[in-house]
Amino acid sequence: MIGVNEPATIAWDESSSCIRFIDQTQLPETFSIVECRTVDRLATAIRRLEIRGAPALGVAGAFGVALAAVTCTKKDRMEFFSDIRRSSDLLASTRPTAINLSWGIRRVLTAMRGAVSVRECREIAVNEALTIAREDEACCRAIGDSGAALLPLTCTVLTHCNAGSLACTAWGTALGVVRSAIGQGKDIRVIACETRPLLQGSRLTAWELVRDKIDVTVVTDSMAAHLMRQGAIDTVIVGADRITRDAVFNKIGTYMHAVCARHHGIPFYVAAPLSTFDADHGEQDIIIEERARDEVATCGARTIVPDGVKVRNPAFDSTPMSLIAAIITEHGVLRPPIDMKGLNIHRPTT
Amino acid sequence: MIGVNEPATIAWDESSSCIRFIDQTQLPETFSIVECRTVDRLATAIRRLEIRGAPALGVAGAFGVALAAVTCTKKDRMEFFSDIRRSSDLLASTRPTAINLSWGIRRVLTAMRGAVSVRECREIAVNEALTIAREDEACCRAIGDSGAALLPLTCTVLTHCNAGSLACTAWGTALGVVRSAIGQGKDIRVIACETRPLLQGSRLTAWELVRDKIDVTVVTDSMAAHLMRQGAIDTVIVGADRITRDAVFNKIGTYMHAVCARHHGIPFYVAAPLSTFDADHGEQDIIIEERARDEVATCGARTIVPDGVKVRNPAFDSTPMSLIAAIITEHGVLRPPIDMKGLNIHRPTT
Repeated sequence: MIGVNEPATIAWDESSSCIRFIDQTQLPETFSIVECRTVDRLATAIRRLEIRGAPALGVAGAFGVALAAVTCTKKDRMEFFSDIRRSSDLLASTRPTAINLSWGIRRVLTAMRGAVSVRECREIAVNEALTIAREDEACCRAIGDSGAALLPLTCTVLTHCNAGSLACTAWGTALGVVRSAIGQGKDIRVIACETRPLLQGSRLTAWELVRDKIDVTVVTDSMAAHLMRQGAIDTVIVGADRITRDAVFNKIGTYMHAVCARHHGIPFYVAAPLSTFDADHGEQDIIIEERARDEVATCGARTIVPDGVKVRNPAFDSTPMSLIAAIITEHGVLRPPIDMKGLNIHRPTT
Repeated sequence: MIGVNEPATIAWDESSSCIRFIDQTQLPETFSIVECRTVDRLATAIRRLEIRGAPALGVAGAFGVALAAVTCTKKDRMEFFSDIRRSSDLLASTRPTAINLSWGIRRVLTAMRGAVSVRECREIAVNEALTIAREDEACCRAIGDSGAALLPLTCTVLTHCNAGSLACTAWGTALGVVRSAIGQGKDIRVIACETRPLLQGSRLTAWELVRDKIDVTVVTDSMAAHLMRQGAIDTVIVGADRITRDAVFNKIGTYMHAVCARHHGIPFYVAAPLSTFDADHGEQDIIIEERARDEVATCGARTIVPDGVKVRNPAFDSTPMSLIAAIITEHGVLRPPIDMKGLNIHRPTT
């Protein structure tokens, strides 16, 4: 089925009460499903980007709290919650810049609050996490439909990183817009920037699009501006990891595309669920995760940076609202300036 | 010695009448010197980028004609020249967008014209090629001194690809400016963009700078704009493969940096010898070399693009003069608009 990975990017296995997910670090060479039975293993998976993508991280956080609840052996309610809190803190610390992760965790924690027994806590946690996963797909389809209306009948879309079904439970955000537009009969081609250092564009976006028989061409990140100048790009659509009042945080390289799109008069869209919005913070409040040197300095077995040479590896950059034509959400297309306080964002207050 | 590779990037071995060069595809993991005894092997080396960089290609072209002359067994002058012409055409076809290659070839061919004997042809070819190699280093030092005056006392320079000693016989063009400025006592740091797909920035620029104890940090190409926004870049300096009346052709990604530098009000400089100028053509006349899919789709033994997915791989892009603050040459700093016809460019008319 189009835009749906079978098995799913991430899912709750009810028969054995564990999380099953696609190990995205091994794509496209190997398609491998991991059965994850502990919160520690899940934390490692998130840190290693076996699971990645803002909406998928929201679901992973939710399933993580459910897994913590199901596997916790404490019978005393206070001791039980103390364990769950520790597991939640561990999970939230794995990708601090990505807001959906802590959003998913907090939403399940909040739902558990009213439970009177440990057993009820477990049931509520699993049910709330499953609800979040179901809502994610519906949300992506709504984003897709909102965004599809923005695209002309024939259109080449440039995207960066992976904001597709592998970044969500299904369908995708930026790629959800592409899928919905194709579903409406539009002729859409995708240019996928490879997205150094971890190549989510060439490894993941290309993998899921070619599987759906969607026309996709991979380029290095540095080719995008050249193609814009040649008139080969009509629109840019990317996802988001956190949207503050004044800026969009997304995979490193997003800002460069936004600057180049503006220079060429090409519309630059962000597709993201409202769970990615962070109305409480401005750009300056957010610390960008700096990841390991080896992600840039090696590629497989190859050493590509000489020993002793310094490397920078910020995982994200921030794009000011002034460069963004619109943010495509499940509640429609929002054009900056956006009144975030006025949006009906489901945000638990824990 | 600073900026000088021992043995040199490319040199003529007089004792055995062959070309010796550093195989740049193996850096930084292996430092390997190739003894090249045939024009076919040299053509392969240029095609595979064992030798690369505009000024080094000029010298390679010159040495290539010398090698053709020395190894040609024809005694008849006409037959001899027919062989040399065939070798020259083969060499010139290996990297069509890079102008210095054909410039070096033509300069040696022109010098040989007056020779009365095959033996004299050989002597002239070797001598002219050695002169070109010697001039290249002097030229780079003059470029370095011209450009160094443009840099403030403390300065972080962003560069792309490798326009250093490995791209020339020694010193470098863009990195020649850095070396000359450091030689003048200035405090210069370099941000080296890795330069996908073939990573000349991380593999070569970082290698030669760290060897000279020059402060260098490697970033992915997609991080440059983010660092510009953070105020971490003062100046951009790149090399060039061909400078037409209206645009600079250089490694893919250069144009993106030029657009982003303009957006942030950062001066964007090109450092290149006059042998890179092509007064006879405009941007639209030049065909950009499209290289093999595997350069983007694989990295060492890893497959990073799924089978069946299309890939683009233009080796160069073009940056219009309007985005360039100045071109730094051995004859001083030229600010656009540049009257190329008025420049005293040594260009054989063959």
